[in-house]
Amino acid sequence: MIYLDHAAATPVSSRVLKAMTPYLTEQFFNPSAAYLPAKRVREAFDTAKGQIANFIGAKGNDLVITSGATEANALAFTSVKAEFSARGKLPTAIAPKILVLETEHSSVLENARRYGCETIRVDHTGLIDLTDLRAKLTDSVELVSVSLANNELGTIQPLAEIAELLRQTRLSRLQRGITTQLLLHSDASQGLALLELNVARLGVDLLTLNAAKVSGPKGVGALYVGHHVHLSPLVAGGGQERGLRAGTENVAGAIGFAAALEAVKGHTAAARKKYTRLVENLKSELSQAKAPPLFLGCPKHQLANFLPVSFPGLDAERLIYLLEEQGVCVSTGAACAASKGEPSHVLRAIGLSPAEIAGSLRLSLGVLNDEANVRAAGQLICAAVNAEAERLGYVR
Amino acid sequence: MIYLDHAAATPVSSRVLKAMTPYLTEQFFNPSAAYLPAKRVREAFDTAKGQIANFIGAKGNDLVITSGATEANALAFTSVKAEFSARGKLPTAIAPKILVLETEHSSVLENARRYGCETIRVDHTGLIDLTDLRAKLTDSVELVSVSLANNELGTIQPLAEIAELLRQTRLSRLQRGITTQLLLHSDASQGLALLELNVARLGVDLLTLNAAKVSGPKGVGALYVGHHVHLSPLVAGGGQERGLRAGTENVAGAIGFAAALEAVKGHTAAARKKYTRLVENLKSELSQAKAPPLFLGCPKHQLANFLPVSFPGLDAERLIYLLEEQGVCVSTGAACAASKGEPSHVLRAIGLSPAEIAGSLRLSLGVLNDEANVRAAGQLICAAVNAEAERLGYVR
Repeated sequence: MIYLDHAAATPVSSRVLKAMTPYLTEQFFNPSAAYLPAKRVREAFDTAKGQIANFIGAKGNDLVITSGATEANALAFTSVKAEFSARGKLPTAIAPKILVLETEHSSVLENARRYGCETIRVDHTGLIDLTDLRAKLTDSVELVSVSLANNELGTIQPLAEIAELLRQTRLSRLQRGITTQLLLHSDASQGLALLELNVARLGVDLLTLNAAKVSGPKGVGALYVGHHVHLSPLVAGGGQERGLRAGTENVAGAIGFAAALEAVKGHTAAARKKYTRLVENLKSELSQAKAPPLFLGCPKHQLANFLPVSFPGLDAERLIYLLEEQGVCVSTGAACAASKGEPSHVLRAIGLSPAEIAGSLRLSLGVLNDEANVRAAGQLICAAVNAEAERLGYVR
Repeated sequence: MIYLDHAAATPVSSRVLKAMTPYLTEQFFNPSAAYLPAKRVREAFDTAKGQIANFIGAKGNDLVITSGATEANALAFTSVKAEFSARGKLPTAIAPKILVLETEHSSVLENARRYGCETIRVDHTGLIDLTDLRAKLTDSVELVSVSLANNELGTIQPLAEIAELLRQTRLSRLQRGITTQLLLHSDASQGLALLELNVARLGVDLLTLNAAKVSGPKGVGALYVGHHVHLSPLVAGGGQERGLRAGTENVAGAIGFAAALEAVKGHTAAARKKYTRLVENLKSELSQAKAPPLFLGCPKHQLANFLPVSFPGLDAERLIYLLEEQGVCVSTGAACAASKGEPSHVLRAIGLSPAEIAGSLRLSLGVLNDEANVRAAGQLICAAVNAEAERLGYVR
């Protein structure tokens, strides 16, 4: 099997599993219990939080451990000074309080919609349209949510530039006596293994992290929460996570997440180099296909392990099926969106035609790839594309 | 070490860990992805859900897998036809929509409070006061939440009797043209290994399950949702769990939960017998102490593995500390409540005096106990009680 869908899921490494196992078995104590073995579990949990936080230049106390990135995104939006509508009705306020990129993952879009939100446009490479952001940044806006890197294109957004624009806007608001908060949230689910992240340098107030995309366990995420940000818990109860997220802590999960980050720490530059080379090889391979590939996204600002590509006129669903028979796993887009059978809102947003969208694959490399299996994958993808092109009477 | 706090946490068994491991490692695929290996993961996840559901006489589709019982409880309350207040303010409605037992776990109480709720009294054994329930069951009430068994006392509530009362109330409402829904929710976090549960027999519309209390992993729970119940998601996004709970599924967690339930299935009667005997032994042992024990709860309706006990006049915190030095782990009450240092609201509700509350221990047996270590624990608890009684000049 050759796996080219690391943006959808990653395997837990043996190192991570080894770190987790004691906290599932012998060290199973409830971290809130009063006896010493339980206090040691609490310490291990806090240490893990500290390690996760350290990865983004923060402190453990700045983090809320969640059940994944989706919950972290939902929790981030509670910073908006409005009740969210669980039933999907918009609050009475007419002016939008949240701005989100139109290419955000559904876990951002769907949660933001429940407060009333407006979307910011992107250009044909998936980069934010800063002019559109400026135009929509009215005085009612309390939160701007822009993912660090898009989950279908790998396009890396200029977060520091956006943060600077928000800083100026805050200043301008203050000069006009307007004290409405203006926060920057970013979903950094993709790219943790490839980018050095620092919340201060990024200028974010809220940052979503995801263990499952970086060889940590599924069902674990974290939300960085700046000191000045006030959240309201989605789940109340025993007061865990400083009252922001109740429920017995997923100790093994947090420890697995920390171990996964420790494994990539200090290796981001080497990983970028490795995947840049592999992606280049893959691109050359795919360029030999009888149907010409259209490489998507923004090469200059793209996660090194991403290769979104379209073979206009072909049917990506059929390609996935043909490749699956050859043991190659690739996807059409976000797994959860693809499973609904709807055309990707991301690819529509960058202006692709229906034929270009229908022929699109998301190839994302990772720990399970090396030069040999990427080369083999390239040949198999070419063969599948050629077979489809011939079947359709498509001649280059 | 002798562990007598199974109500707080349980170790994952090697059988459960073995079931989970493949789904952390080789079978790591995103269940929403389109290729065959991912579809097999989806199948395994659905099979696990089916097994969990089967344990309570339901179907997999009736369940929402959550990150634990606390989230399941919070989700259950979204069945109430009002927006919940994340910010803790009550909705404008004056009449309470939810009735909860005053002895409920904070994960029920704190979430219910955000909709407006009233509490139902219990008697001195912790059993629901049905007269109080009847009196408070006004036509505005939409949901009654009564835990299967209390997490401090082990008191088992007469759920079927409560369900029958609600059925009659629904009938009476319909006869008067009132169509307000009336649902029964129960948090069954405690007792899964000891009671045969069947949602139809219990008469519940919503049932919370907790993996962490039955030798499954932490961070996994489930909510049974009757077909006629409408929930609103707390976390929106990719549409997983029929849109009721977004986020990539915690596949390994669900499979671990299913394996944990399979391990106890068909053994509940034997387990009750075993723990009844062990608890009887422990009671006789403790009755030898120089300070007379006050056994709490309702012996006739109590989880077989629970032994809540007070040594009035002694300080339970000091007992925990002395016992910890002897390698015995016991708790004062719910771990998350105890960690806040507040006197137990459960023990206050059953009318204990401050001295009785201060001297209370919750002993809860489980997989890590046998006749020998329970006898040893009994002797060590007696010794600690005697030491404290002597220190305080307490003579029987």
